[in-house]
Amino acid sequence: MDVLFTFKIAERQKAELIQQFPTCTFHFKRTASGEEVNFADVIVTYGGNINHELLARAERLKWIMVASAGIEKMPLEALEERKILVTNVRGIHKTPMAESVLGHILALKRSIPEIYAIQETKEWKGDFHSTELRDSTALILGPGSIGGEIGRLLQAFGVRTVGCNRSGRKADYMDETITFGQLKAELPQADFVISVLPSTPETTGLLTAEHFMAMKDSAIYLNFGRGDVLNEAELIEALKEKRIHHAVLDVFQTEPLPEDSEFWTLPNCTVSPHVSSKSWKYIERALIIFQENLEKFLKKEGNFCNVVNLKQGY
Amino acid sequence: MDVLFTFKIAERQKAELIQQFPTCTFHFKRTASGEEVNFADVIVTYGGNINHELLARAERLKWIMVASAGIEKMPLEALEERKILVTNVRGIHKTPMAESVLGHILALKRSIPEIYAIQETKEWKGDFHSTELRDSTALILGPGSIGGEIGRLLQAFGVRTVGCNRSGRKADYMDETITFGQLKAELPQADFVISVLPSTPETTGLLTAEHFMAMKDSAIYLNFGRGDVLNEAELIEALKEKRIHHAVLDVFQTEPLPEDSEFWTLPNCTVSPHVSSKSWKYIERALIIFQENLEKFLKKEGNFCNVVNLKQGY
Repeated sequence: MDVLFTFKIAERQKAELIQQFPTCTFHFKRTASGEEVNFADVIVTYGGNINHELLARAERLKWIMVASAGIEKMPLEALEERKILVTNVRGIHKTPMAESVLGHILALKRSIPEIYAIQETKEWKGDFHSTELRDSTALILGPGSIGGEIGRLLQAFGVRTVGCNRSGRKADYMDETITFGQLKAELPQADFVISVLPSTPETTGLLTAEHFMAMKDSAIYLNFGRGDVLNEAELIEALKEKRIHHAVLDVFQTEPLPEDSEFWTLPNCTVSPHVSSKSWKYIERALIIFQENLEKFLKKEGNFCNVVNLKQGY
Repeated sequence: MDVLFTFKIAERQKAELIQQFPTCTFHFKRTASGEEVNFADVIVTYGGNINHELLARAERLKWIMVASAGIEKMPLEALEERKILVTNVRGIHKTPMAESVLGHILALKRSIPEIYAIQETKEWKGDFHSTELRDSTALILGPGSIGGEIGRLLQAFGVRTVGCNRSGRKADYMDETITFGQLKAELPQADFVISVLPSTPETTGLLTAEHFMAMKDSAIYLNFGRGDVLNEAELIEALKEKRIHHAVLDVFQTEPLPEDSEFWTLPNCTVSPHVSSKSWKYIERALIIFQENLEKFLKKEGNFCNVVNLKQGY
């Protein structure tokens, strides 16, 4: 059984895997360009290197473990046809991402950008119009694992949470749940609109100029899901015309964000370079899921953790 | 019954007071320099204008309502001798202050200062070494109303909370409570050391160079209580020698912070110009406490809310 890693892990993590799985041969590489692809049974990857060319070479491939959440750039149909198992690390992003979302929201409400700015000029002033989270309302697009963790923390701050998903079925840590169809009617009540939606045919272009028009002019919009949930030109327009108060964007239609994007320079926009899920514990947590699944894989047990539904795309 | 306000409140708030208390004559001024002091029964103040000179003129004064928490600059002995009731707004700071503390901590852990900085140069980079709150330990000096609210929120993030007070008696939202005497032994376990202590003879100079030496070099120190809990020169020394990772200071020995203070320019120090308790809801909340107490005062009921113990100083 040949297992190919295409990203770096620590020496002690390599040693632990070798010891725990003596029947496996591990190939710890940092790319998928080597000959190991040709005979690997399992590939562990961040996902970016899985394409048609790789699949053509990877004749023995049975399982792709993606140490990331989004798989929208992978050749999903071809994978389904080959009946290749795809698992991801859904769930491990929730702690760092929810902490990032809360950090950005609290920073904006509690005047932290202004505090950093006055320190540059040694200016002791305090007329910042700080506001509070308490008693506000957050609309969470995608109240799954990450959205639920954001909701749980917001509730601790006394924020009312409204989840928004395809079916409107009840979700954890949401005071209420609505469908995508009810979204526009709910937007005028929201102080925060937080998207953590994956990129699927149903979520692409979900938010339009009309939606930004329906939001409060004091609303903060945060996108920590995928950039294609909206048309960026429409959001730029809404920010320029101050139809909403601020946007915090961790994801973009094109990444890295091109230097000529107006997002970089809009005073009411924070550009976060797709770092919200980063954490020193990331690989550690990913390996825990991988080890659990590898055990099942070797025993031909099935019932894998975090199997990706290739039709739905998440 | 004459009630003198020495700070600005909104017109609708004035109207509400006049309507609710028809037996009172309200004097809505913005200072205590006028002749109303000479016959006021009640003075409502932020506290800074209460001194011996004012007391000498205020012959009929029976109650001072301080719309602030710290009263250390007031002539406490003289007030006690005159048996003047002093009440404050203890409790109304807890929501904005706890949100500020969490905002600063999350910002530092989730690389938000770095995110703001790269936007200035349009540099898409993400190697920030972001860390997490989860599974860390916070030591809270002063686990009262504000400290408890900070503890409650930290616990929601999966942080272990250790309260530290004079007696070591159990406090809400603290997984453990220790005495001031046990502080130094506990410091090496703390990832965050958060002071919200008032200024009293017992808390002045509580933290010394030795304490900063005992902290982790990754520790974040936050002072949202009073500046005299430490000797500022010792903290500056600790920051320069990187004995701790970062300090966030909302209070200082001298405020406004003098322009030549090294705190302004230390890269591992955030200067917050005593704004953490600011909130658009501040006066609204202070008036709720005042109205409740004024009703009791008029009925000679006693049992006032937030009476200051002039001997203890808080």
